[in-house]
Amino acid sequence: MLVVMKAQATPEQIQAVCDHIEQLGLRAHPLPGAQRTAIGITGNKGEVDRGNIEALSGVAEVIRVSKPYKLASRDVKEEDTVIRFPSTGIGPDATIGGRDLAVIAGPCSIESREQAFAIAENVAASGAQFFRGGAYKPRTSPYAFQGLGVEALRIMAEIRDRFGLRIVTEAIDNESLELVAEWADVVQIGARNMQNFSLLKRAGKLRKPVLLKRGLSATLDEFLMAAEYVMSEGNYEVILCERGVRTFADHTRNTLDLSIIPAVRRLSHLPILVDPSHGTGKRDSVLPMARAAIAAGADGILVEVHNHPEVALSDGQQSIYPDQFARMMDELAQIAPVVGRNLPRDIRVEAAK
Amino acid sequence: MLVVMKAQATPEQIQAVCDHIEQLGLRAHPLPGAQRTAIGITGNKGEVDRGNIEALSGVAEVIRVSKPYKLASRDVKEEDTVIRFPSTGIGPDATIGGRDLAVIAGPCSIESREQAFAIAENVAASGAQFFRGGAYKPRTSPYAFQGLGVEALRIMAEIRDRFGLRIVTEAIDNESLELVAEWADVVQIGARNMQNFSLLKRAGKLRKPVLLKRGLSATLDEFLMAAEYVMSEGNYEVILCERGVRTFADHTRNTLDLSIIPAVRRLSHLPILVDPSHGTGKRDSVLPMARAAIAAGADGILVEVHNHPEVALSDGQQSIYPDQFARMMDELAQIAPVVGRNLPRDIRVEAAK
Amino acid sequence: MLVVMKAQATPEQIQAVCDHIEQLGLRAHPLPGAQRTAIGITGNKGEVDRGNIEALSGVAEVIRVSKPYKLASRDVKEEDTVIRFPSTGIGPDATIGGRDLAVIAGPCSIESREQAFAIAENVAASGAQFFRGGAYKPRTSPYAFQGLGVEALRIMAEIRDRFGLRIVTEAIDNESLELVAEWADVVQIGARNMQNFSLLKRAGKLRKPVLLKRGLSATLDEFLMAAEYVMSEGNYEVILCERGVRTFADHTRNTLDLSIIPAVRRLSHLPILVDPSHGTGKRDSVLPMARAAIAAGADGILVEVHNHPEVALSDGQQSIYPDQFARMMDELAQIAPVVGRNLPRDIRVEAAK
Amino acid sequence: MLVVMKAQATPEQIQAVCDHIEQLGLRAHPLPGAQRTAIGITGNKGEVDRGNIEALSGVAEVIRVSKPYKLASRDVKEEDTVIRFPSTGIGPDATIGGRDLAVIAGPCSIESREQAFAIAENVAASGAQFFRGGAYKPRTSPYAFQGLGVEALRIMAEIRDRFGLRIVTEAIDNESLELVAEWADVVQIGARNMQNFSLLKRAGKLRKPVLLKRGLSATLDEFLMAAEYVMSEGNYEVILCERGVRTFADHTRNTLDLSIIPAVRRLSHLPILVDPSHGTGKRDSVLPMARAAIAAGADGILVEVHNHPEVALSDGQQSIYPDQFARMMDELAQIAPVVGRNLPRDIRVEAAK
Repeated sequence: MLVVMKAQATPEQIQAVCDHIEQLGLRAHPLPGAQRTAIGITGNKGEVDRGNIEALSGVAEVIRVSKPYKLASRDVKEEDTVIRFPSTGIGPDATIGGRDLAVIAGPCSIESREQAFAIAENVAASGAQFFRGGAYKPRTSPYAFQGLGVEALRIMAEIRDRFGLRIVTEAIDNESLELVAEWADVVQIGARNMQNFSLLKRAGKLRKPVLLKRGLSATLDEFLMAAEYVMSEGNYEVILCERGVRTFADHTRNTLDLSIIPAVRRLSHLPILVDPSHGTGKRDSVLPMARAAIAAGADGILVEVHNHPEVALSDGQQSIYPDQFARMMDELAQIAPVVGRNLPRDIRVEAAK
Repeated sequence: MLVVMKAQATPEQIQAVCDHIEQLGLRAHPLPGAQRTAIGITGNKGEVDRGNIEALSGVAEVIRVSKPYKLASRDVKEEDTVIRFPSTGIGPDATIGGRDLAVIAGPCSIESREQAFAIAENVAASGAQFFRGGAYKPRTSPYAFQGLGVEALRIMAEIRDRFGLRIVTEAIDNESLELVAEWADVVQIGARNMQNFSLLKRAGKLRKPVLLKRGLSATLDEFLMAAEYVMSEGNYEVILCERGVRTFADHTRNTLDLSIIPAVRRLSHLPILVDPSHGTGKRDSVLPMARAAIAAGADGILVEVHNHPEVALSDGQQSIYPDQFARMMDELAQIAPVVGRNLPRDIRVEAAK
Repeated sequence: MLVVMKAQATPEQIQAVCDHIEQLGLRAHPLPGAQRTAIGITGNKGEVDRGNIEALSGVAEVIRVSKPYKLASRDVKEEDTVIRFPSTGIGPDATIGGRDLAVIAGPCSIESREQAFAIAENVAASGAQFFRGGAYKPRTSPYAFQGLGVEALRIMAEIRDRFGLRIVTEAIDNESLELVAEWADVVQIGARNMQNFSLLKRAGKLRKPVLLKRGLSATLDEFLMAAEYVMSEGNYEVILCERGVRTFADHTRNTLDLSIIPAVRRLSHLPILVDPSHGTGKRDSVLPMARAAIAAGADGILVEVHNHPEVALSDGQQSIYPDQFARMMDELAQIAPVVGRNLPRDIRVEAAK
Repeated sequence: MLVVMKAQATPEQIQAVCDHIEQLGLRAHPLPGAQRTAIGITGNKGEVDRGNIEALSGVAEVIRVSKPYKLASRDVKEEDTVIRFPSTGIGPDATIGGRDLAVIAGPCSIESREQAFAIAENVAASGAQFFRGGAYKPRTSPYAFQGLGVEALRIMAEIRDRFGLRIVTEAIDNESLELVAEWADVVQIGARNMQNFSLLKRAGKLRKPVLLKRGLSATLDEFLMAAEYVMSEGNYEVILCERGVRTFADHTRNTLDLSIIPAVRRLSHLPILVDPSHGTGKRDSVLPMARAAIAAGADGILVEVHNHPEVALSDGQQSIYPDQFARMMDELAQIAPVVGRNLPRDIRVEAAK
């Protein structure tokens, strides 16, 4: 159910409607739009009686939402969600989901302060606004390198201070979620946890943006339902990320499904990024697929960069070199205007000098 | 690495070898076999120096294990793992992985005490030794029924007392894991959590058998690595369960991959069950696929039974009726001897009277 | 559209209805049933005017068929299709689709007269009623062995005369189709040609049964539509065969989808066999999956047997040894009665002596 | 095996080596390169004796080719294959595989002369160099529209004369292959026939370029082996075309696998196009994926355009409108230089006036 407020509805009227909904034992989600505010209702088992709500002052209409996801649906919020990151002190504000493309770059794992700083300097110099690096690694083998943990978080916090890069890193359970939310700017939920509903609900209680990766065999509906789990707890800043799905094809590690971009645009207002590193698993496919992602309309790129990928502790074969990253940024900057976008990167260059 | 002890090695010698390994900062996993004990070594980054270990008394040889999984591998433990459940006071002992087939039956969700007892009585009367019922439900939608939680656990504990059925139920996070481990006989980890490594490690610290369902797009190697996560923490009682994978095929909800049964047999000593309910999603496919699973060599069946599936709160369309379950048991009992197995069920009939 | 005749309709009345349909520029397919005859109408673009047809004598009713396939649908023909093979002079009649299970066994390719006879003798001795052997091989590489062609057909004709085994072999194009139809008892259309519609139509003009293998990524609807192509040309003796589909799973060559068996039963009256050799690609999975196929309700098995698989010119790793085949027959004979079937095999034993 | 000739080898020396190879009962495939000619040898069962060949005059070296495909491999021919189409009298020459991108556009099926001409005029005006239209349609249902056949071929020949567009159309069997080869400029082999080896061999005997679509579940190796079938018969002008594969994903009809583009580049010298119409099955995904394909490095686009898609006899929901096609051309022209390519289209605009 969705309560659409009149264009001239006052904040007090909106609050009164929310209060009414909560008194019914339901949950109200005010969703401000450019023209008017809508209020999503969740928690109802069946139909909610519309009459009483429609009678409240400031209410334009009450409509049913037929999709299984509600808060993530474009039916409920027509405008694209733009997630804003104020200036870190170095460089200007940044956004994910607006006209500016977002580029999140860095190593698979934080291996040492030296490694992280060297890569951060490189990606900042080429214009990345966000830095990624694994502190907690979900590894297929219990015997593989599992990440430096909180030490890595501290290193990344220094990187933010030094280069003005916002930090994106993965949380893998409740413990790491709290720490990541404390230190990072964006909390990543990985593909293997896309249906870890307990973790999603916890992430929904955070007031930090959540970058949610598509599961290896998740349908679009399931992907949006996972976002809905986060949003249903009150955190509406969810960033979707396509990272390849499992198929029979064996020329890449996964099959990057770029066709999900126009499909997400149709159904949801949430931003969608693409990770061509995990999506292909092969260094020489990363640039072509990064260009393709932007050409297909993605809101940005999440990419693994390493200064010595041949000795990386994880995912070396899919990490690109800093000079490849620089070339990628040049190419994306040229493709951006074709799709009505812009790749902001002037400021970072100075930052790294 | 695997230390193979001499057949006549004493418990003291075995302990001494374990102590030596632990002093090296590694982890020792004693794995008793019919002829001799082997000791798995995990935690080593590279090669362990064999010389010193081979020189210890009672050691026959030290061998490298080439598979990425070690404790789950048949190279490390040749005999099938048999998990034993002593009598609950009603009826005899039970096993999973031995000559006797295991049948785990019950509703998708515990909906009420009445519903659960009615179904339990039915499945006990037909010879099931284990009762399944969801207390914590991982649902695709945040707005769907999420289970009765600890109330459901209490109901199932009563069912064990009343009918002698061992309880199998799913844990979805750390909180529910502790409760489930306290109340149930087998802790289930669901398909969506097969690579929730944090949860797997916690389950590895339990002293309760863990039933691990194959992820929707998990390869066999990933499945065994997930088992290895549990085992690497010291819990060697892992039961694998095939429940269908994601494919393009649309005549069933998932594609039940029975060919994993002979493949698991070849590579691992762990028992493997099949869930034809989730594996097909269609009631009229459950019996054919249950028969097929046993004929293919599975160690047993996990099946959803409901006395009123048309009003079930979840998965009604794939739950079979009690009379279908009775017929299934008759059929499985006939197929069992063809594959050298036995379906124990005499005692339960009395229990339910 | 389907014309259902009255139970007591005469052959003349049926003929008159067919004539009427053909005069409308449509095609009539008389489908005799146990109780009454139905006449399928194909070739209509839209709705056919029912009034005139219902007014013809002997017509009970005219009904619309909503499925995209009509002649293959159980809506149109309720009774299972049973394909009959009269005695070859050695041994009794045989059937595919009736109470008796059908077993089709032999090498992937006919490599020589000696090889073929040796294997044929073995499989006949164990009770197979049908012999398979490739004369024309659709190979992924143009440089791989492509089969002995007509020489292989002649060898198989001798095998029929000598052992009383009916011959099943694949046609790969129009030229081979004519030759295969001349020499063999069942014409196989392979998985790669399941949607070679030109070949299917030609096969529909034959008066020999057609064994149609499921394509590597064919949905059930597409599979039945391929059968419909054959049937729409007047050949109603189509035998379906599941042989594994393409998925991400890598522990077998293909993923054998046994759940298609109950799904075919529900939707179609055509018999369905299973090929566990191509379905798994691994010798040690063939017996378990053959047992599983019969337990799931398949009408029979198509299996590769070779007396020296280690030197086979094709598919050696998935061919079973003659003694494994004998064991398989023993096991299938025990499972058959559980599913209301029978494995006929007494006569063949004498034949081979 | 590959014979690499010296840079200064004469045509007579090349001919002498070919003759020598043919006398050995093998097949010689001269492959001219920018620097030197190589001669592929096929038809050998095992190793060919190199000594005698290396002793022939003009031979630089004889090397083994380890890939299962040889003539399609970049190991055998390093330079990209460029297929040249001389001017039709209207407009300049065209190429597929060179610096210029190729755009092939038109309706799924030729429905009438009026429909075909109207669409042809539109796509020519926007700069397409090639016109596609189905004359022979491989339809899933035997009851669906199967194409106008030779009448459609005649209409397309008129379109070539009128607009200077080269004609691309599908052959589905030997009969249509001969007719298509006679009337069209490029012979298309559809996805369902990618492993119709009999048809591929016939296409290999043509002297017309062959556009080969990837099968719905074909691996890259199988795709290149299918091309090898055509090339092994002497037709080296093969154009690959990605058109989506079968996966579990349900937001598009197929999953367009753009990551095959860099993979093909690495392994083969053959050009690769992308069909975003069949690849997605949804009109509003066609433009994004067309842009993505070019950004990923494809040699061009095959796209369905219809002036009244809502009444198209086939594939209406995936056909774009002429104005969308015009916009697509504008966008591709802007992306082309980012990947070092050019979209030629000036001349066509005049042609259509």
